[in-house]
Parts: sequence; C-alpha cells; structure tokens
Amino acid sequence: MTEFIFPLRVYIEDTDILGMVFHANYLKYFERARSEWAEHVGMGIDWQRKEGVYFPVRSIKIDYFRPAQLHQMVEVVTRLIKVRPASMLYEQHLRPKDLNDTILCKAEVKIACVDLDLRPCPLPDSILQSYMENERDS
Amino acid sequence: MTEFIFPLRVYIEDTDILGMVFHANYLKYFERARSEWAEHVGMGIDWQRKEGVYFPVRSIKIDYFRPAQLHQMVEVVTRLIKVRPASMLYEQHLRPKDLNDTILCKAEVKIACVDLDLRPCPLPDSILQSYMENERDS
Amino acid sequence: MTEFIFPLRVYIEDTDILGMVFHANYLKYFERARSEWAEHVGMGIDWQRKEGVYFPVRSIKIDYFRPAQLHQMVEVVTRLIKVRPASMLYEQHLRPKDLNDTILCKAEVKIACVDLDLRPCPLPDSILQSYMENERDS
Amino acid sequence: MTEFIFPLRVYIEDTDILGMVFHANYLKYFERARSEWAEHVGMGIDWQRKEGVYFPVRSIKIDYFRPAQLHQMVEVVTRLIKVRPASMLYEQHLRPKDLNDTILCKAEVKIACVDLDLRPCPLPDSILQSYMENERDS
Repeated sequence: MTEFIFPLRVYIEDTDILGMVFHANYLKYFERARSEWAEHVGMGIDWQRKEGVYFPVRSIKIDYFRPAQLHQMVEVVTRLIKVRPASMLYEQHLRPKDLNDTILCKAEVKIACVDLDLRPCPLPDSILQSYMENERDS
Repeated sequence: MTEFIFPLRVYIEDTDILGMVFHANYLKYFERARSEWAEHVGMGIDWQRKEGVYFPVRSIKIDYFRPAQLHQMVEVVTRLIKVRPASMLYEQHLRPKDLNDTILCKAEVKIACVDLDLRPCPLPDSILQSYMENERDS
Repeated sequence: MTEFIFPLRVYIEDTDILGMVFHANYLKYFERARSEWAEHVGMGIDWQRKEGVYFPVRSIKIDYFRPAQLHQMVEVVTRLIKVRPASMLYEQHLRPKDLNDTILCKAEVKIACVDLDLRPCPLPDSILQSYMENERDS
Repeated sequence: MTEFIFPLRVYIEDTDILGMVFHANYLKYFERARSEWAEHVGMGIDWQRKEGVYFPVRSIKIDYFRPAQLHQMVEVVTRLIKVRPASMLYEQHLRPKDLNDTILCKAEVKIACVDLDLRPCPLPDSILQSYMENERDS
C-alpha cells in the first residue's frame, strides 16, 4: 500500500514528431504500473476473472512537467491514496531512474470497481483493511 | 472561437479487451480535434513551422462517463475557454453523433505555446484579439 | 469488389521521433479501410455480431516506399484479390490524396473468417458470388 | 549475432475488443526487441546520434499463428539473418515465456541504414565483420 515502483524504458512507439513521449502514452505507462500493482496485492487478472469484476478509469488529472526521452529508463511511482468500498484513488508519477527528485509528469487516477453489468462492486476486504491499517499507521 | 465540431468513427485499434475505447485513446481523439481547430483558425502545421513554435500539452483533467463503442460515430466538441499570451485552455467533450445531450467523456486541456528551445512564445495577435472579442460578446 | 477508397489524415499520434508515420501505424490505416469496406459490402459489425463471426488477421506482407507526413491527407486503396470459403486476401496501398500514382506503402493482408471458438466459418454466399462474378468479368 | 531474447508482458493497451493483442501491436514488440539488440551490439541510440544515421523499416512479412493474451509473459526472439552494406534482415518471433517450441507470431523484417537525407549509409565494420564470422562458423 506504500510506494510501488515500476521500471520501464521509452521506445520509438511511445514518441511523436516532437521527439519525446506523446502525451497520451504516459497514461499507458501508468496503467501498466497499476496492473502490476494489482497483481502484487492479489487483485490481478486471475482474481478479476474469478470475481467477475474489472477496473474502469473514472477520471484522471495529469500535469506534464518535463518530457521523457527516447530510450530513457524511467520509473512509475504508484501510491493508493484513498479507498472507498467500490473505488480507488491513486497518485502516480513518472521519474527518471536514479533521479528520485525529478518528476516528469504526475497524475491522480480514480478507478471504479464494477461487475460485468457495470454495477459498482465491493473491493476485497483484504484491500480495504490493509489500506485502513496503512492509513492509521501513517 | 465558438464550438468546433470534429466527427470521427471508433475503430478496432481504439478498443481494448473490455470491448470499448481504451481510456488513453480518448486523448488522441481530442488531439485530432485540436489539430483541425488549429488549421481552421490559421495556426496549423504550416503556420507552426513558419513561426518555429509548437503546442505541448501542459495538463489534462478528464472525466469518463460512458464508453464509446466499436464503430460508433462520435463527435469531439472543442471550445477555447481561456487564452493567455503563451497558453490556451480548451474544454473538449465527446458525444455520440446525433445525440447532442449525451457526454461520453469530458476534458479540460491546457496547451502551451513554446519555441524549439521550450521557451514560452506569444500566440498570434489574431488569436488573442479574436478570443477577446468573443469573450466580450458573450 | 473493385477498388474501395478510404481517405484519412495523419495526426501527431501516428508519428514518431523520426518525424513521419511510425511503421506499425500504417497497419491501423489499412484496418480502418477494411472495416469500412466490410460495412460497405454488408459484412460490417452488425452482421458479424448476428452471425457470431470475426475476421482475425492471418498474415501481412508490407513494403514501405515513402513515409506519410504529419497532417498529410492520404487514401487507402483496398482491393479484394482472392476469396476462399473461409478467408480473404486483400491488396491495400496508401497514396497521397490527389496523387494517384505515388505509393507510400503497399500490403497484402490475409484475413480468416472464424467463429468465437476460432473455427473457420464460411463467408456469406453474397460475398463469394459477387467476388466470383467480378473475377469472371475481369 | 545469435539469438537475442527480449522478455515483455502484455498489457491492456496492447489488446483489442477481441480480447487478445491487436495485430499491429506485435510490430511494436518486435521493434522494442530490435532497439535493445542494437544497444547490445553497439549500434544503439548514442551511436546512431553520433553517426547521424537511423534505421527505417523497409518491409515486413508477418504470420500470426496464436494470439498473445492479456498479462501473458512473452519473449521476442531476434536473429540477424542477412547483412548487406546498408541493410539488415532480421527473423523475429514471439513465444510464451517457458514454452520455447510455441510460436505465437513470426516475422521477417528488413531494415535500412540511412543518413538524415535518407541516403543509404554503411553499417559499422564491426557489425559487418561480426556477422560474416558468425556466418562462416555456422
């Protein structure tokens, strides 16, 4: 529930004619990181299929500070900052690997938990409890 | 400077395993609409090359309400809502063609105007004046 | 069954750091054109859903001659060149609008017709017959 | 110059409405692998910038056998099979991690080496010699 670090490299597919990462593609990086986080905490693909739930994005606020460059090694830092019974709010940012204090872009991403008919669906107790303990401790 | 309508269709490339448009791809639709708008108001590619400026995205807030479907005809509605000497704020939303009151997703997008060294660059007078007149009239 | 023309414009999302369209993105243009062709001949989305079939790509050969440029208006030219009971072979190429003799890239694309369990599925008689008549006439 | 293995995971961005990887996106996987290979053999980004050359794709033949699935760990296997003074031919295939004998898709990719004016540019001697020695030994 604390910081989750996901490393990746920028490839040509991510860039555009301006020579840097195309602005929409940072959202892909953040999605990859949330997917890996979900696996890490036990809400990955297998769990989602078993439970018949999925995690659509409800809203995103993103600020772009400095562009990521072709072939640069970067890291997505993900923190779950709010949990409601059927939604989660993440703070995510991208930084160069080995430059912890530089933020390339930063987002708040709200995710719902819904069933296949798009009805809100409760998150697992383990997540809710773990998050609440984490909150209490911090 | 009032509403600018850009129609498009959803293709397979835009969808993901959930069967609807992948959340990051709506930003591509909005970018296409801003590009066509820029051509329309005289700040298109040729102008940008001549002036040596470009328009990086500074921030986006986007809310997702209802997903767009494969092969659906949709429209991006774009309005310039604030102009500063070297930046523009747009409000953009996506709606089904022929369903003006349904909003699929909605965004506020802030764009900078910079030169090739990333220094802020003034927008053309014609844009500034046209926007100010528009403001005064409304 | 003869040439089917699909116009489109190149946007920033399609380009890469080399300043031209990223090589994989031409396949998206060709897919959009095949989707529109399928609608045109009565095998569009509604038909596919009613019949429970879909059209996965089996193979592609593509040659890149000249790159498409940002904001260029281009056209995909699509011809069905072979029909088998459960597959179709298309020839597709991309050209600048209003420059019929210039080929930017050219592909042969083989598509299967399968059901949801991935078993080969016969194409509709109307397609088979229309193609065969077309062949006989040419 | 022998087999170069590049591992990756399938994410939501890679899938389409059919629930598997969108056909054009396999080309992105292959490009990532060639980029890493180029770094590995000393022709990476820094070298390309120093020499003023780049590597546009000239042609691709790709056969799709079995789809890659969401969240699957896969590997791109890359082999350089022909080297000419200003071009390279690669054979690349995608396989599930830990299933060496299963081929998901397979491609032959021809790459040119050109300068910024698109004129053919000789590959470095080290590559040519290393490839020729490799050929002689095999």
